[in-house]
Amino acid sequence: MFTPPPSLAHLSRPSLVVDLAKVRRNCAHMIAKAKANGVRLRPHLKTHQSHVVGRLLRDLGLGAATVSSVSMAQHFADDGWNDLCVAFPINLRELPQIDALAGRIHLASLVDHPATVHALAEALHHPLALWIKIDVGPRRCGLDPSQHEEIIALAQLIRAQPLLRLAGLLTHDSRTYGVSGAAAVSRCYRDTCQRLNEVRRLLADHGIAPLEISVGDTPSAALVDDWGEVDEFRPGNFVYYDLQQLAIGSCTPADLAAAVACPVVGLYPARSHAVVYGGAVHLSKQSQPAMPEIGLPETHWGAVLRPCGEAWAEPIPGAWVASLTQEHGVVHLPPEILAQLEIGDLLLIAPVHACLAAHALMADTHYCGAPPGAVEA
Amino acid sequence: MFTPPPSLAHLSRPSLVVDLAKVRRNCAHMIAKAKANGVRLRPHLKTHQSHVVGRLLRDLGLGAATVSSVSMAQHFADDGWNDLCVAFPINLRELPQIDALAGRIHLASLVDHPATVHALAEALHHPLALWIKIDVGPRRCGLDPSQHEEIIALAQLIRAQPLLRLAGLLTHDSRTYGVSGAAAVSRCYRDTCQRLNEVRRLLADHGIAPLEISVGDTPSAALVDDWGEVDEFRPGNFVYYDLQQLAIGSCTPADLAAAVACPVVGLYPARSHAVVYGGAVHLSKQSQPAMPEIGLPETHWGAVLRPCGEAWAEPIPGAWVASLTQEHGVVHLPPEILAQLEIGDLLLIAPVHACLAAHALMADTHYCGAPPGAVEA
Repeated sequence: MFTPPPSLAHLSRPSLVVDLAKVRRNCAHMIAKAKANGVRLRPHLKTHQSHVVGRLLRDLGLGAATVSSVSMAQHFADDGWNDLCVAFPINLRELPQIDALAGRIHLASLVDHPATVHALAEALHHPLALWIKIDVGPRRCGLDPSQHEEIIALAQLIRAQPLLRLAGLLTHDSRTYGVSGAAAVSRCYRDTCQRLNEVRRLLADHGIAPLEISVGDTPSAALVDDWGEVDEFRPGNFVYYDLQQLAIGSCTPADLAAAVACPVVGLYPARSHAVVYGGAVHLSKQSQPAMPEIGLPETHWGAVLRPCGEAWAEPIPGAWVASLTQEHGVVHLPPEILAQLEIGDLLLIAPVHACLAAHALMADTHYCGAPPGAVEA
Repeated sequence: MFTPPPSLAHLSRPSLVVDLAKVRRNCAHMIAKAKANGVRLRPHLKTHQSHVVGRLLRDLGLGAATVSSVSMAQHFADDGWNDLCVAFPINLRELPQIDALAGRIHLASLVDHPATVHALAEALHHPLALWIKIDVGPRRCGLDPSQHEEIIALAQLIRAQPLLRLAGLLTHDSRTYGVSGAAAVSRCYRDTCQRLNEVRRLLADHGIAPLEISVGDTPSAALVDDWGEVDEFRPGNFVYYDLQQLAIGSCTPADLAAAVACPVVGLYPARSHAVVYGGAVHLSKQSQPAMPEIGLPETHWGAVLRPCGEAWAEPIPGAWVASLTQEHGVVHLPPEILAQLEIGDLLLIAPVHACLAAHALMADTHYCGAPPGAVEA
């Protein structure tokens, strides 16, 4: 049962395994939803940072994407993406790199401070689109919607710079990561849309129009059917999903499209656990509270997936990563699973946060689930 | 005040900054302590994974070291280390790599299961030293000291294989990471030494002698003066130290030898915070409870260090990383610091767990504090 599928038999170290059949299905579903809403889908590529998955998104018709760093923008521009938004506040220490990239592709980024706009105006030789970052509640970056004067002044400042184009208002509502279920996520989303549209009307009243609205969180993209008055959606995690999204309700166990394959290096039936080569530097230290509804009764750092075909099916009840150190993962397992397991087997672990595992394992990623010849690294 | 020192002015992305003057002092202190105890110091290189720091350790007279993966062993063998212990259970999926490495250098590793010994005996063409991993309490890997029959049988099995040499008994007492202060750490350490020496006597009674004892945790190495009846100590973190070790009491603020330099990308005085480019993929998601004694009254993911000379002094009271997402760090700062800060400045952040930050930033590491010409990458 825990013999790895033959396609994974060559994996010798902790590796990200991506099921491209599930990725394709998750992507097609989100693309159809965006189309039905008449909203531009600009997927966030930080979830995977993968040229393979990026090409799959392009093959499905998407031409614009989101990234979270200048280096990530370079990584995807090098693979042919020519319309990227760095959805991260401008880092003034990378102005030369930003300018060079703005000379190669259609580049956008975001600002919430006039000092950044002045520095950009002084440094750039190429056009750059800017979104004003609005904080709808999470209190990370962005101007509060109530800061009318600052928002108007910033918009006017941007519009006064020849090489800068004001694209609109952008937010990332991470409040939806702290709730669960469609009703609670929808409440956050409606609040977000209302606040952003109020700011849009405020700016229109000051002659600053038309402006687009861009929103970003995967829970809203997945759980809200009517996306309302927004122009662009930037979810990322929907490509792989993970245990965090499963707990929120954004996906079903069948949608989990990325797993970390970890070699079993120790068996301890008396302690109800195995130890795998696969630790904090592979899965990340992001933990998640108990999910009793799928048999994970304690805080955990991953769940063990049931091998199926050349990939996996659902998480196995009672099988979770109970602790992580740098390279070790301690995996709690039911006795009947432990009895079947041998040292040297592979466990397929669903990460709590797929984006962090994918970042950690970029150099050790294996793709499955695609027709032969369909995947080019 | 927050103008980065000129030597750091070129850093544009989140980077690990290593103060080699502090590293050298921390290392010299631990080497002297090992010498005074008559114990072999086999430092764990996983903390830094750095050829520069590795060479510094060699320059101070050390010739043997510890690593936590086969690939890390290859990384250091490539830089001239010829006596390495992979202090991680043998990964049967890397037997060819282990065998090749055993043909190049003096290689050791650890086991706690007969299946692993059988697999090694079948696969190896080169000699390998093995330590039996004993679990003194943390319940991660290893045989319980009470498993007399299993320990004796495993020792005999190893000794029956022509290419395997039984080196002794090895443990890592991670219980010391959950306590604080010299008295509590010493209690753990005495318990560890007693258990391991009991097992050593058990094996001697069965004609299996002489065997060495190897222990590993940095808190014991730092806080216990009399290392007692052990032959080898494998601490790693003492080279850099970090907030976790500071909380345990293993070091003083002046010993913190590694920081993550993060560009400031947002200023939010109304929320008492700045946002830096520096997130979970740089600092790791490892958090730490409040340390009110140094002005960190809440759970945090790092502390802001006061810039000093070309490096830093102590953590600034009231300045801590309050939350982390993939690339963003939200940094709580006192009003007088926020008033001085500008977008584009660098903040120097002491990580909670230096090993994880160093792993994440291996490709973005900057060394300072060494005499000119002394550092070769």
